[in-house]
Amino acid sequence: MVSVQQAEEIIQSVPAVVRPETVPLNHAVNRVLAEEVTADRDLPPFNRVAMDGFAVDSRGFSPGKRYTVAGMQAAGDDPLLLAHPDTCIEIMTGAVLPGGADAVIPYEWGTANETTFTPHPHITITPWMNVHRKGTDARQGEAILATGTVISPAEVAVLASVGKASVNVYAFPATALVSTGNELVPVQARPLAHQIRQSNTPALQAAMATMGWKVDLFHFKDDYNHLYTSIENLLGQYDVLIVTGGVSKGKFDYLPQVLEKLKVKKLFHSVAQKPGKPFWYGHRPDGKVVFALPGNPVSAHLCFYRYIRPWILRSMKVTVPGVQAMLASEVRFEPPLTYFLQVQIRTEQGVLRAFPVAGHGSGDFINLKNVHGFLELPANQNEFKSGEAYTFIPFRTPF
Amino acid sequence: MVSVQQAEEIIQSVPAVVRPETVPLNHAVNRVLAEEVTADRDLPPFNRVAMDGFAVDSRGFSPGKRYTVAGMQAAGDDPLLLAHPDTCIEIMTGAVLPGGADAVIPYEWGTANETTFTPHPHITITPWMNVHRKGTDARQGEAILATGTVISPAEVAVLASVGKASVNVYAFPATALVSTGNELVPVQARPLAHQIRQSNTPALQAAMATMGWKVDLFHFKDDYNHLYTSIENLLGQYDVLIVTGGVSKGKFDYLPQVLEKLKVKKLFHSVAQKPGKPFWYGHRPDGKVVFALPGNPVSAHLCFYRYIRPWILRSMKVTVPGVQAMLASEVRFEPPLTYFLQVQIRTEQGVLRAFPVAGHGSGDFINLKNVHGFLELPANQNEFKSGEAYTFIPFRTPF
Repeated sequence: MVSVQQAEEIIQSVPAVVRPETVPLNHAVNRVLAEEVTADRDLPPFNRVAMDGFAVDSRGFSPGKRYTVAGMQAAGDDPLLLAHPDTCIEIMTGAVLPGGADAVIPYEWGTANETTFTPHPHITITPWMNVHRKGTDARQGEAILATGTVISPAEVAVLASVGKASVNVYAFPATALVSTGNELVPVQARPLAHQIRQSNTPALQAAMATMGWKVDLFHFKDDYNHLYTSIENLLGQYDVLIVTGGVSKGKFDYLPQVLEKLKVKKLFHSVAQKPGKPFWYGHRPDGKVVFALPGNPVSAHLCFYRYIRPWILRSMKVTVPGVQAMLASEVRFEPPLTYFLQVQIRTEQGVLRAFPVAGHGSGDFINLKNVHGFLELPANQNEFKSGEAYTFIPFRTPF
Repeated sequence: MVSVQQAEEIIQSVPAVVRPETVPLNHAVNRVLAEEVTADRDLPPFNRVAMDGFAVDSRGFSPGKRYTVAGMQAAGDDPLLLAHPDTCIEIMTGAVLPGGADAVIPYEWGTANETTFTPHPHITITPWMNVHRKGTDARQGEAILATGTVISPAEVAVLASVGKASVNVYAFPATALVSTGNELVPVQARPLAHQIRQSNTPALQAAMATMGWKVDLFHFKDDYNHLYTSIENLLGQYDVLIVTGGVSKGKFDYLPQVLEKLKVKKLFHSVAQKPGKPFWYGHRPDGKVVFALPGNPVSAHLCFYRYIRPWILRSMKVTVPGVQAMLASEVRFEPPLTYFLQVQIRTEQGVLRAFPVAGHGSGDFINLKNVHGFLELPANQNEFKSGEAYTFIPFRTPF
C-alpha cells in the first residue's frame, strides 16, 4: 500500500505522451496551447483612438481656442494628416490617430458645428489623452501566450488578434475507458432485480469531454479469458486504459492478474485513502499506462479528479494552482488513511467554506449531486477542526 | 443612463425563450436539465454487498463460530438463499445480499478454506454491516435531480443509473453574434496598417460554446443601409442578437438608429459602469432581444459575463450562487460609476484574494490573459480597502 503522495509521485513520474495537433480557433477553447504565441505586430498596431471626438496637437492648445475641422476620419479609414495646429480632425473610436496629432478631445468636451470645434474653456489637454498608444499592450515578436496555457475565451480573443485562425494544442493520448462487472447493464437497458446500470464510464467520459479528451467506451464481463483477450486487444490500440472495477479482493477480480500477464508492471495496488483504496496503477515498457480504478462510483470519481486529471494537465505543462478550503465543522476520522471528505462549498465574504455532505458510503453517488468536490484530510491526523484549511479537489465550480 | 443594478433588472425582466430539447446523455454535460428526474427504482435497487467476503445472519454469530460455506455468489448472479444460520455464502462486492443474511464479514476478518469460514474470535458483527441497504440513497419515484440543474459529470452518473440514455435539457435561443466596424478584418486576413483583426466575436463564441450555446457569426460594415437590411434580416431569423461595436457617440455608430427604426425598443443606452458604458439593450414586441455591446474587447467580455450569461442561466432556472473575493490592495476610483476591476485570484488558506491587474484601458485585452474575472466595485464609493469583500464575476476558474 502506498500513500496518496507516493501514488501521485509514481503516476506523475511517467508523463502522458501528448503530441501537438492543429485545431481551428473555434474548437480551441478549454484546450491547452502547445506552442508559444507571439505578437505578429505591435498591439495596438497603431496609435488607436479610444474616444469619439476631435484629434488635435496638444501643444497648440490654449483655453478658448477654436479649431477648424480639417477632415473626418472613421475607424478603418486610411489615416489623415494634421497639417496645422489650429486645425483638428473629427475622429472615431478605433481609428488611427492622424499624423501630427497626439490627443483626442471627446465630443462632450466642447461645441462643434460643421466647420469648427471649440473646446470648453476649463478643460485640460494632456499628450496622448484618449489614445491607446501603439505597442503598449505588446511589442511585435513578444511572447504573449505561453505553452501550457489553458485557452479560455480571453485567450481566444488574444489568438484571434494575432491571426491564429488555427492553433497548436496538445492532443490527448488515445484512451479506452472500460467498465467491468457482470452486474452492469447498459444505460438504456431495463436491469433485472440483481443488476444495475453502468454509471462510471458515462460520468468519466463526461468529465474528460469537458477538457476535450475524447475516449472510447468498452464493457467486459468478469471472465478471465474474455478479459485477457479484450485487454490485450485494447493495449494494442490505445495508449491509456482507464478501467473501473475488478481490482478488489473478490474471486472474480481478475484484472491485476490479467494485467500482470500482459506485462503491465504494477507500480501500486492499494492507496492509503478512503474512498478508493483498491486503486491499481501500472505501465508497460512500451509506454502503455493503465489506471484501474475501484468500481464504486465515488471512488472512481475521486481517483479521476485527484490523480488522472492532474497527470494529463501536467503532461501538457499546465500549472494548476492548488486551492484550499476552510472546513466548516469538526470531522473525526480514525483510520490511518487520507480521507477524501465530500464537501459542499459556500463562499462567505471571500472565504471558501467547506461543509461536509454526509453520504452512505462510496457506493452512494446520488450524494455527489450536492457536492462540489473533496476535501483532502491527511492520514496522520484524526481530528480536523472547524476553521482549518485543507486542500480542496473540485469536480465542479462552486460559483 | 441606468445603474448596473437597473440594467440587470431590465434584462432579467424578459427571460430568454428556452424550450426543452432531447440530447443523448453523452452530449448532456454542462447543459441545464429541463425536467425533474426521478429514481426509476430504489437506489440501491437491492441490499448491495459492499465488501468481498461471506454473507451471514448476524443473529447466529458467536465468537469462535465456524460456518459451512453453502455457496458462492458473484456480482450479477441471481441471489442465493441462506438456508441455515450455521452456513454462510461467499459473496462479492456489488452482489445482492442473499435472503436470510443481514451482514457481510470481509475475507480479512477470518480464515477460509474450500468448505468453511472461521471468523477471528475477537470480531464484532452488527446487523447490516458492509451492506449498502436497498433504498437508502433514494426511493423509487423520488425526485433526485431538479429542473435547472447544471449537469456535471456527477449528475451524468446519476442520470445513467436511472436509465436516462437521453435527457431533456434547455435549448438556447437562436442567436446571431455580430461584429461591426470598418477597421475589422477576419482572423485569417493580413490587416493593413490601419486595420485590426476581429477578436470579440471569436471570444464570445468560445464563451458561449463552453455552455453549449451555439451561435452564428456575422460581420457588417458601418454603413447605414447595409446595417439596416442586414439587421432586419437577422431579426427575422434569430431570437437573440448580440452585436459588438457601433453603439458609441461616433458619427458611424448607426446601430441605435437602425434598431429603433426596426422597432426594437431601447430599454437602456449607457450603463453607469466602467468599462462598458455605451452598452445598449432593447427588445421588440415579437420577443426578439438585442444586446448591443461596446466594441472594446474588455467591455464586451465584461457585459457578456455580467449580464448575458446570468440572464440565460436564470431563464433556464439555474440558481447561480454569487461569490465574493477579498480585495488584496487598496483601490481608488473617483467617477460615480460601478468599476469592474480586472483581478487575478490567488487563494490563500481558503480565502479568495483578488489582486488588481493593471491594464491599458478597455482596449487592452492582452491583459485579460492574466485575469480570472472582474471585481464589482460599487458606484457610491471611491475608496476600496484591502481586505474588503466585493462581488467577483469570474470568466475562468481561478483553481
